[in-house]
Amino acid sequence: MSNEVKASSRERLLEAAATRSYVDGVNIGVEALCKAAGVSKRSMYQLFASKDELLAASLEQRAPGFAARLLPPADDVRSPRERIRYVFERVEAEAAAPEYRGCPYLAVQVELKDANHPASKVAHRVKEGLTSFFREEATRGGASDPDLLARQLSLVFDGASARAGIQADAPAGLLGPTVDVLLDAAGVH
Amino acid sequence: MSNEVKASSRERLLEAAATRSYVDGVNIGVEALCKAAGVSKRSMYQLFASKDELLAASLEQRAPGFAARLLPPADDVRSPRERIRYVFERVEAEAAAPEYRGCPYLAVQVELKDANHPASKVAHRVKEGLTSFFREEATRGGASDPDLLARQLSLVFDGASARAGIQADAPAGLLGPTVDVLLDAAGVH
Repeated sequence: MSNEVKASSRERLLEAAATRSYVDGVNIGVEALCKAAGVSKRSMYQLFASKDELLAASLEQRAPGFAARLLPPADDVRSPRERIRYVFERVEAEAAAPEYRGCPYLAVQVELKDANHPASKVAHRVKEGLTSFFREEATRGGASDPDLLARQLSLVFDGASARAGIQADAPAGLLGPTVDVLLDAAGVH
Repeated sequence: MSNEVKASSRERLLEAAATRSYVDGVNIGVEALCKAAGVSKRSMYQLFASKDELLAASLEQRAPGFAARLLPPADDVRSPRERIRYVFERVEAEAAAPEYRGCPYLAVQVELKDANHPASKVAHRVKEGLTSFFREEATRGGASDPDLLARQLSLVFDGASARAGIQADAPAGLLGPTVDVLLDAAGVH
């Protein structure tokens, strides 16, 4: 393969792995992935050591976009409370889309059931980044226990996105009041 | 098959479907399930129309045990607040086991990504039962908005059990304070 063809095949495989695993689950087969990407199995194995590595790489590649979609810009002037609430407003907006299936970084870990899988490790790290964001804002906002508040907000994030993804509940009218109660109790005004 | 053999094969298949899908996920193959149950594929298909139906039946069969493990006895004398807290103390106790992988009725829906799958339907119904329990206790306990509180508690239940199941966090020191804040805010004392 030329370098250009390689780059394009790689991009298409990463795209297919991210989108197909989100819709069909991590157990989607190599054949189906290659077919969706329009890449031969032989080419796939020239680019990635295994399907597991392809899946991990696709989650890694999507991580900056995940953060950009959910977190407020670093330089905005809102208060820590508003910056935390912003994340949940974004979840509420995303969950309203009919194709929403919950947080991909939670789903992949629930599905793989193996914390040592390369894709689980990437997903775990991405979500730790979200918890760190909550912890920093909680600290800046004067929370009585920033670590507890960050864990609570992460729990609410995962619970709400999972329940929206399986159509058990919708975040609208639920997420805002829940986050407010937790922020109030922690003294983040 | 004699009726006795049938009953025993059926039980073993239900047991295998429940335990193997919890550990390995819903995509476990028919061969592996039959092997775990010590039942031929032919016998399996005499007892269940499909693997999907077997999975749904196994979740249905486990539902009374799920409720018995998590909910307080119907005739106990605790207050609604204590009865709600009891559920989360049970989650905390269960999540401490090394083999804990989160709530099976959440996991199966996250994995199947199909609300119309027979197993998703069973799981959805079982979890609605839990939300109904919360709503009834919230009402008895004088919650300002029993429906909102029930949704919040269901969200916390799923968030905490999912995060414990993927080893992102443990409920200890997190679940109690979170539930207390929500109960306080709703006026359930």
